[in-house]
Amino acid sequence: MTSAPKGTIYGVGVGPGDPELVTLKALRILRAAPVVAYPAPLDGDSFARAIVAQFLSGAQREIVIRVPMVPERFPAQDVYDRAAREIGAEAAAGQDVAVLCQGDPFFYGSFMYLFSRLAAEFHVDIVPGVSSLTACAAASRSPLAARDETLTVIPATLDAAALERRLAGVDAAAIIKLGRHFAKVRDVLLRLGLAGRARYVERASLPNQRILALADIDAAAVPYFAMILLGGPNRPGEGER
Amino acid sequence: MTSAPKGTIYGVGVGPGDPELVTLKALRILRAAPVVAYPAPLDGDSFARAIVAQFLSGAQREIVIRVPMVPERFPAQDVYDRAAREIGAEAAAGQDVAVLCQGDPFFYGSFMYLFSRLAAEFHVDIVPGVSSLTACAAASRSPLAARDETLTVIPATLDAAALERRLAGVDAAAIIKLGRHFAKVRDVLLRLGLAGRARYVERASLPNQRILALADIDAAAVPYFAMILLGGPNRPGEGER
Repeated sequence: MTSAPKGTIYGVGVGPGDPELVTLKALRILRAAPVVAYPAPLDGDSFARAIVAQFLSGAQREIVIRVPMVPERFPAQDVYDRAAREIGAEAAAGQDVAVLCQGDPFFYGSFMYLFSRLAAEFHVDIVPGVSSLTACAAASRSPLAARDETLTVIPATLDAAALERRLAGVDAAAIIKLGRHFAKVRDVLLRLGLAGRARYVERASLPNQRILALADIDAAAVPYFAMILLGGPNRPGEGER
Repeated sequence: MTSAPKGTIYGVGVGPGDPELVTLKALRILRAAPVVAYPAPLDGDSFARAIVAQFLSGAQREIVIRVPMVPERFPAQDVYDRAAREIGAEAAAGQDVAVLCQGDPFFYGSFMYLFSRLAAEFHVDIVPGVSSLTACAAASRSPLAARDETLTVIPATLDAAALERRLAGVDAAAIIKLGRHFAKVRDVLLRLGLAGRARYVERASLPNQRILALADIDAAAVPYFAMILLGGPNRPGEGER
């Protein structure tokens, strides 16, 4: 029926939270796209949308992808099936769609579930963003990794035994997605003698960013957007000045 | 003698290469700073400066930090001593200094050697940037890591035995800083049976970006700005659509 070319679907990394950490490319795309899609909890606002709210025209069609935030639940396939159909319908009608992704689209992001459904049929372009990983390193004022150090990124969702296995013998490390897993992670770090190297950062780059010592943290109040960084052996110190 | 307040020193991540992957914050700072500093090889142009060349006014004072690119050489302490003195003198005179860092300042960057020399005496602000890690994942059109996968970032500068040890049992991995280490890394991947999972990306986000199969690569022509990504077990595929 229509002869219009298909629209492009963009997976747009919008960075860790500070709207100024949006890239020029992300800004150009999300201002130009007639349709904007983003994940949000079942009830409540979308963090990804909040980051770029000031850049949206108000005239754009918005697709809200309501994702149940059930801990450790297998990603809700029906949610992504439905969202992919809705986004695909816009692209098929010739509309570009900007899918907003907090941080970076392919660094532990849910965008991969849309990408796997849409990439065969549509042109999908990935716009990398500033990840929480480097934003937390900046906030903690300490290098993430140096020289020939290995950097290990470990989700806190693993069980204690798996965390211990992954942390044994690490150089530099980041334990991400802390939330309600904090107490388990702290216990493991204490058991491995790594607590002294740990730096805790929550909500990096946002006005309510906090950097705390492990001992000062209320485990019940740790957000999902928090991580623990472990410095490696090679960071330059006083001795090298 | 002077009553002017000290200037601020900014470690500014300028992203992986595409000037559009510069953040709004980086752009604001590097346009406003009266002094811009950046690393460069002993003879030749600075990659960090080239990324943002179009954004510089031409009226800014430029400090070129000439770093000997001797493979595996311990970072030239005298080079960073001298650069820190020069940058510190500007800040002491009330001038803000933007230090340009390709990718992100604290992701294996040399900015740490300036930070360790300057942070006690001056206000140093770190502006995170898009790292080569997520830019390569975007270029390769495959997620870096998913769900509860561990992501291991391994410098190719390690010897073969250390590479094997670090790669044994990884979920997702990135082997960075390939350059002249490529043949060694490929041998290790073949020996571990991991070559089939490997995706090679060079110069991600630049016009001459390339994604190649391991078998198609001329080991003598691999640039420093290249990495191999190994996908983890949990990326969504056809079966989950």
